[in-house]
Amino acid sequence: MRIVITGGGGFLGQRVARALLARGGLGAKPGGATQMSELVLVDQVMPQGGVSGENVRYATGNIADRSFIKRIFAPQTDAVFHLAAVVSAGAEADFDLGYQVNLDAARLVFEACRAQPRPARLVFTSSVAAFGGELPAVIVDTSAATPQSSYGTQKVIGELLVADYTRKGYVDGRCIRLPTIVVRPGRPNRAASGFMSSIIREPLNGETAICPVPKEAGMWISSPERAVEALVRAMEIPATEWGANRILNVPGITVTVAETLAALEKVAGAQYLARVHFERDPGIEKIVLTWPARFATARANAMGFGADSGIEDVIKLHMRALAQ
Amino acid sequence: MRIVITGGGGFLGQRVARALLARGGLGAKPGGATQMSELVLVDQVMPQGGVSGENVRYATGNIADRSFIKRIFAPQTDAVFHLAAVVSAGAEADFDLGYQVNLDAARLVFEACRAQPRPARLVFTSSVAAFGGELPAVIVDTSAATPQSSYGTQKVIGELLVADYTRKGYVDGRCIRLPTIVVRPGRPNRAASGFMSSIIREPLNGETAICPVPKEAGMWISSPERAVEALVRAMEIPATEWGANRILNVPGITVTVAETLAALEKVAGAQYLARVHFERDPGIEKIVLTWPARFATARANAMGFGADSGIEDVIKLHMRALAQ
Repeated sequence: MRIVITGGGGFLGQRVARALLARGGLGAKPGGATQMSELVLVDQVMPQGGVSGENVRYATGNIADRSFIKRIFAPQTDAVFHLAAVVSAGAEADFDLGYQVNLDAARLVFEACRAQPRPARLVFTSSVAAFGGELPAVIVDTSAATPQSSYGTQKVIGELLVADYTRKGYVDGRCIRLPTIVVRPGRPNRAASGFMSSIIREPLNGETAICPVPKEAGMWISSPERAVEALVRAMEIPATEWGANRILNVPGITVTVAETLAALEKVAGAQYLARVHFERDPGIEKIVLTWPARFATARANAMGFGADSGIEDVIKLHMRALAQ
Repeated sequence: MRIVITGGGGFLGQRVARALLARGGLGAKPGGATQMSELVLVDQVMPQGGVSGENVRYATGNIADRSFIKRIFAPQTDAVFHLAAVVSAGAEADFDLGYQVNLDAARLVFEACRAQPRPARLVFTSSVAAFGGELPAVIVDTSAATPQSSYGTQKVIGELLVADYTRKGYVDGRCIRLPTIVVRPGRPNRAASGFMSSIIREPLNGETAICPVPKEAGMWISSPERAVEALVRAMEIPATEWGANRILNVPGITVTVAETLAALEKVAGAQYLARVHFERDPGIEKIVLTWPARFATARANAMGFGADSGIEDVIKLHMRALAQ
């Protein structure tokens, strides 16, 4: 089994790669994994000290380059995690780049899957940014996608394409709308939702964090651990269990900035709170405050997807990772 | 005011052109129309005996050709009706052609609008094919788009793009989901829904029609007259009245095959019914029977869009057009 992860050099791609190596491959049942012949991590640059292994290969290049994608997918490929994307604030700032990567490059990947002798399994990462504007109090499985950002628009278009390619039998696609991932490690990125990680990560790191939204602002979040589990589960669930509907809101938890800071105080100590400054940013607010904070994920729950138990545990998971 | 109609050589494009010429242009109020300096009808071929006039110009070429589109939109353009499309069964039969015309060419048109010195008004024709699969009994304004065909997928992607371009201020876009148009004049086309026109048109023309779906099958339809009114209205309504939501289900009427044949008998005579043969076509059924037949179009009604009074009147409109 050959597996490709686009965005494989990134934080989430690296975690998925590590999870696959730990499991020895992919399979419907634990212990019943099909071994990987090759795990290809595609990204713009190779990460320093990244995941390595006998069957692990890095492929660096521009994902929007047709010939690069063709080369990546020339050997028969069985499973693809398509994680590569320009993040929300980035796609909002550079309209053309957003469409080039989040739509055009995604289409190259879907076409590469279609060109396989056997339809490849494809996990496409979508986002809560699929929703925005006037929303119901709680998003349910049948809620209409109403993106209010270019990033969200591009993600919803990706979902629609994956659904159509799947219906045609060109790919065996699975789209999951991931909550905002908290705590993202490393430096802040251009994701508009990045502050929710920053207000935990930076204080614990002895640095100052800027919170660009009011304390009452809520967000639908997931730890990196649950997100990686969701990605692997989305891939492993048999096509028959997915059925015709290939777009899924996966579980998360709803937290406000205030709740997050209270949990930080409880788990780590009151001294960290002083390192969080509030400076409202209308540009960030315009994107993030349109995203829904509450979901009822009945279908995903029934399919075995799980959520974190609370924001305190999310912070503890991050502190444990820091200590390693 | 320069107006471009893509698909301007087609049946609907010609009717819109005629309506614009009759009105003398476009405007928010009757009698307050802004005069057209040029009306450009873009299509693959020039129609025989098509609309003509002092300011009417035909531009023939491939709409998926970037340089052709650039030339069309080089002079400052104020309003665009984007009607050109590969129809439903056509897009289902030729996956690549469908995406090339219904997505890639649409994007060329949107980019051409974006390149205007002033954002152009754009009416994008979407379709009931935006819906499919497990549907509520009645589609409402907030129902989720769930296309079950490549054509429907492409139309929903177009809507999302128009909404995003509009949000960014690149275009002043308006998407209307037209009901199936009955009676389409001329020869049958590759639209999967074409039979509903055929079972009226062919018998009246002394020919045989094939109905590929059961008598009970329902459809959400509009006469060409109401569809043209909807297109012009969508363009004329001020941006402020559209607000942030640029995607609209427009009114139609729900009719079954049985009701249509009963109306044909009443309006034209019983002798025509014998010319309709039932031959089920699973390919057509698979597309058309997933489309919703019932809508509640509260928002469009409030915006002044209107529907036909019933299938008998729709047939009479067609017979009147034939007699001219």
